[in-house]
Amino acid sequence: MNNFTYWNPTKIIFGRDILKNLGEEMALRGISRVLLVLYGEDFIFESGIYHRVTSSLEKANIAWEELRGIRPNPLLGKVREGIRLFREEKLEALVPLGGGSVYDTAKAIAAGVAYAPGDVWDLFEGTAPVPEKTPPLFGVLTTSATGTEMNCSAVITNEEKNLKWALEDEALYPAVSMVDPSLQSTVPPRQTARGAIDTIAHTLEAYFDGTRGVQLMQEYGESLVRSALRNGKILLEDPENYDARAELAWTSTLALNGSTYAGKSTGDWASHEIAHSLGALYDVPHATGLAVVMPAWMRYVCPEHPDLFARFAEKVFGISEGTEEERGMAGIEALKKAFLELGEPVALNDLGLGKEDIPGIVKNCFAQRKEPFGRLKPLYPEDVQALLELALA
Amino acid sequence: MNNFTYWNPTKIIFGRDILKNLGEEMALRGISRVLLVLYGEDFIFESGIYHRVTSSLEKANIAWEELRGIRPNPLLGKVREGIRLFREEKLEALVPLGGGSVYDTAKAIAAGVAYAPGDVWDLFEGTAPVPEKTPPLFGVLTTSATGTEMNCSAVITNEEKNLKWALEDEALYPAVSMVDPSLQSTVPPRQTARGAIDTIAHTLEAYFDGTRGVQLMQEYGESLVRSALRNGKILLEDPENYDARAELAWTSTLALNGSTYAGKSTGDWASHEIAHSLGALYDVPHATGLAVVMPAWMRYVCPEHPDLFARFAEKVFGISEGTEEERGMAGIEALKKAFLELGEPVALNDLGLGKEDIPGIVKNCFAQRKEPFGRLKPLYPEDVQALLELALA
Repeated sequence: MNNFTYWNPTKIIFGRDILKNLGEEMALRGISRVLLVLYGEDFIFESGIYHRVTSSLEKANIAWEELRGIRPNPLLGKVREGIRLFREEKLEALVPLGGGSVYDTAKAIAAGVAYAPGDVWDLFEGTAPVPEKTPPLFGVLTTSATGTEMNCSAVITNEEKNLKWALEDEALYPAVSMVDPSLQSTVPPRQTARGAIDTIAHTLEAYFDGTRGVQLMQEYGESLVRSALRNGKILLEDPENYDARAELAWTSTLALNGSTYAGKSTGDWASHEIAHSLGALYDVPHATGLAVVMPAWMRYVCPEHPDLFARFAEKVFGISEGTEEERGMAGIEALKKAFLELGEPVALNDLGLGKEDIPGIVKNCFAQRKEPFGRLKPLYPEDVQALLELALA
Repeated sequence: MNNFTYWNPTKIIFGRDILKNLGEEMALRGISRVLLVLYGEDFIFESGIYHRVTSSLEKANIAWEELRGIRPNPLLGKVREGIRLFREEKLEALVPLGGGSVYDTAKAIAAGVAYAPGDVWDLFEGTAPVPEKTPPLFGVLTTSATGTEMNCSAVITNEEKNLKWALEDEALYPAVSMVDPSLQSTVPPRQTARGAIDTIAHTLEAYFDGTRGVQLMQEYGESLVRSALRNGKILLEDPENYDARAELAWTSTLALNGSTYAGKSTGDWASHEIAHSLGALYDVPHATGLAVVMPAWMRYVCPEHPDLFARFAEKVFGISEGTEEERGMAGIEALKKAFLELGEPVALNDLGLGKEDIPGIVKNCFAQRKEPFGRLKPLYPEDVQALLELALA
């Protein structure tokens, strides 16, 4: 078991009918002026979520400005717009209202506001540190997927440079995140399925990090994957199933709140790196990119670590026949099948991409690095090329 | 899945060779005068732990006073002594150095210092709230058992009134807890075994709360019980096994840091209440009391909730034959056997107590309450009498 530090100060308020307390949570901390950061579709308004949140703010005498139109693969331009607005209006806290893209935008705004007058992208490039004191987030999560509601990282796309990069800093943990699973039954089924896939991918980045001998944590990872598959499948048939919705939501939070890393490492993350390049270049949704890349990565790496993949196949899919490698490969096929059943493509071809596009993706992966990436197997450009070829069809 | 709030701000620093950073963690927060709260046996000095901690304090220019001689089932008198010392010396933080009893004493001192000039027992009686700001704890855990290192409760025995009561308040989360599993290989094997039992009991108080339909959390509970049994057994044979020591330590923290309650309830806790009475009346060690009481409680309750106990029997002990109730009862027998193998008695007779002592224990349980206690089955005096009779032999 490796040494580790675990610290996660986010307060999660989880369940039905909780949004009415949002204003009070802020008022308790002396906050009176906030920036609402809103998802760019009518859903937020039509579902009544916007109304519930603003009513709660009014009741607590909290004034607000709004930054609207955040979209998946959120853009740096919106972050900069938010930073300007936050400063001009002398606001005190951020209220992201939506899923991962909205939360990540709010986190980047918080970091950028504190870093004034420097430009926020410096922080992503690592040429300056995130200041210790950033304005707090009080978020309302409407889609469970990225785990952003209880972690300190934000992924933003720099549309000028075609880069999708992550910023991670302890100052960016949300102060409070509200998760009402019942609000998520109105999100499109496709988005629910993508949330389940994202959750599985996050779990597996920690699970397949190569650390051996921490059985408790491997069992934990397996239970998270089983839960995401089980509840994702239930919700495709029965989107109103509250218990499945709630279990998937909490699974999604746990999959990336740091708890899966205890005694292991900070994860592999190679699949995410490659999926980010697909997002930056072709605007492929995050979970779709993961559904394509992760099984290919697993197939590429399995022969070198068959014990890890055989265990996964057995504990998640009950596969127990064949050599370790055969079992491992069968587990990967079962996972691909599960992704397909959840409605996501698992091949580059299905995204309209072919072999001729792979060198460009590889190039993007190495745009700002000379070192290989990934922990279980450090990937060089030729590795990324080879594994993306496995993802073609 | 029930509504819940999850918030746990304790920073855990876990692993080998970490104590040298303790002083720095405090200096970073501007602290320069602290109270060391020390376990009452030579082990702390002989093992070199005291030396390592004080060296780290010296290096960070932190001055300290000491409160020595804390023992299992820690006493209110020591808490009051600590409060006086803390005030007189104008100290700023507490450094518990030991296991649950030392941590709980430090937490009670923190609460009492903040509550000055009132008497700290008022807080246990609930006649006054714990003030919001309490001096912070920077602890070093030398025995994993109670989970106190990452929760906000403290159990103290009032030796004048023969009461062993718990105080729980968000202000009492330790700021930092250091857990170096390698330090625990010098604690007596019996204490390790008791830690495993305590961990199992904590897990089961959440597991058997009667909430159904949260499969993820049931699987989590089962993985914690399996880990405590597996690693407890390994350590009896091989106390120096670092991985087993580390896995048991982290299991113990997780078993009572709030993570097992998500979507469930605040737990049953009837077995703990009764074990606390055994501690208050006969100074029975906490884990020993639990090893006697919990299986008896399970037997008493199983016939009304056979599905819960059958699942436990299957997932933890692989028992799959018979009716639900038969499987449940077989699982309880398997758990008793495991406790015996860990070296703890599972019967009141083995503690030198007989049927004639039961009414006194029942009376102590209801000393300050008129209501029944426990969630899965609310227990009245006649229930406690009946289940303790099951625990006799």
